[in-house]
Amino acid sequence: MQSLPKSVNNLINQFANLPGIGKKTAQRLAFHFLSSDVELSHSLSTALLDIKQKIKNCSTCHGITEEDPCKICSDKKRNSSLICVVENAYDIFVFEKTNSFSGIYHILGGALSPLDGIGPEDLNIDTLLDRVNEGMEVIIATNPSVEGETTALYLSNILGKKGASVTKLARGVPVCLLYTSPSPRD
Amino acid sequence: MQSLPKSVNNLINQFANLPGIGKKTAQRLAFHFLSSDVELSHSLSTALLDIKQKIKNCSTCHGITEEDPCKICSDKKRNSSLICVVENAYDIFVFEKTNSFSGIYHILGGALSPLDGIGPEDLNIDTLLDRVNEGMEVIIATNPSVEGETTALYLSNILGKKGASVTKLARGVPVCLLYTSPSPRD
Repeated sequence: MQSLPKSVNNLINQFANLPGIGKKTAQRLAFHFLSSDVELSHSLSTALLDIKQKIKNCSTCHGITEEDPCKICSDKKRNSSLICVVENAYDIFVFEKTNSFSGIYHILGGALSPLDGIGPEDLNIDTLLDRVNEGMEVIIATNPSVEGETTALYLSNILGKKGASVTKLARGVPVCLLYTSPSPRD
Repeated sequence: MQSLPKSVNNLINQFANLPGIGKKTAQRLAFHFLSSDVELSHSLSTALLDIKQKIKNCSTCHGITEEDPCKICSDKKRNSSLICVVENAYDIFVFEKTNSFSGIYHILGGALSPLDGIGPEDLNIDTLLDRVNEGMEVIIATNPSVEGETTALYLSNILGKKGASVTKLARGVPVCLLYTSPSPRD
């Protein structure tokens, strides 16, 4: 791509480094901005800087918010004795889309991963323990990965000791046994 | 998505309006920027504004460039009596990737489309006529659309009158006739 000006090549490379965007889409995007009005570049550029200036973490649940505490934590209608523990801020967004959870959330900021050097002290576990009291219900909704399952096991142990009722999200689909192979004795 | 802060929703919408990016990818991108360092937002934001400040059109071929005339037009090694006529700046980029064309380019800036009100005066046709002299070779590489074909026909007429040799890109794949139906007389 030596024939392209340096600044266009730079923009293509920046787009291509984003998740879910390949080289071809990156080229298409760069040429889209080139042929569009300057306002389009300005508004995306402002939006990108805006989220970095305005968004902070909620001091209670560690979720992303413009005001502290966040809308969910400050909502009086929510059941504050039901906490759903998730890995990342994006997970809250997925739960909220279902419109079926009335409790509050707590974001760990990742999952336990000894191989990557991520231990309990690197996650928001101490603030979770401060929030959980006896009789509260905690739903652990970590990812179905090895790290997520390890974290769920670790949390259910320490939260169980605090007297909370701990549950995990159900995984997979329920199956019905249609055929049993005859036992060797038959 | 009422649970998301306003600035995040704004960024998601901006991404989703770009060509080739759906709602899901837009959400993924926004959360990628949220969880990344501020430098990532800064560098994409700068790159977006950079192309609008630095890139201009070449006064000779109307291609995109940082210096005027562009690298291709100012390259003495190129065959300046062989002009390839394309619709947009992106087409030059596609041709240059093949590394097999040694001539120069001319960008029309679109194609004739009476339905959209685009006539010959809206395209860079007058500057093309200024560049083409008798004995020169012109390759018309407009898109294989109705508008592109109409433009090619229009150009080959007026360029032919100037004494230039006009050719068009070959389309489709060569086929070999394997079976001829017998004539009714047999």
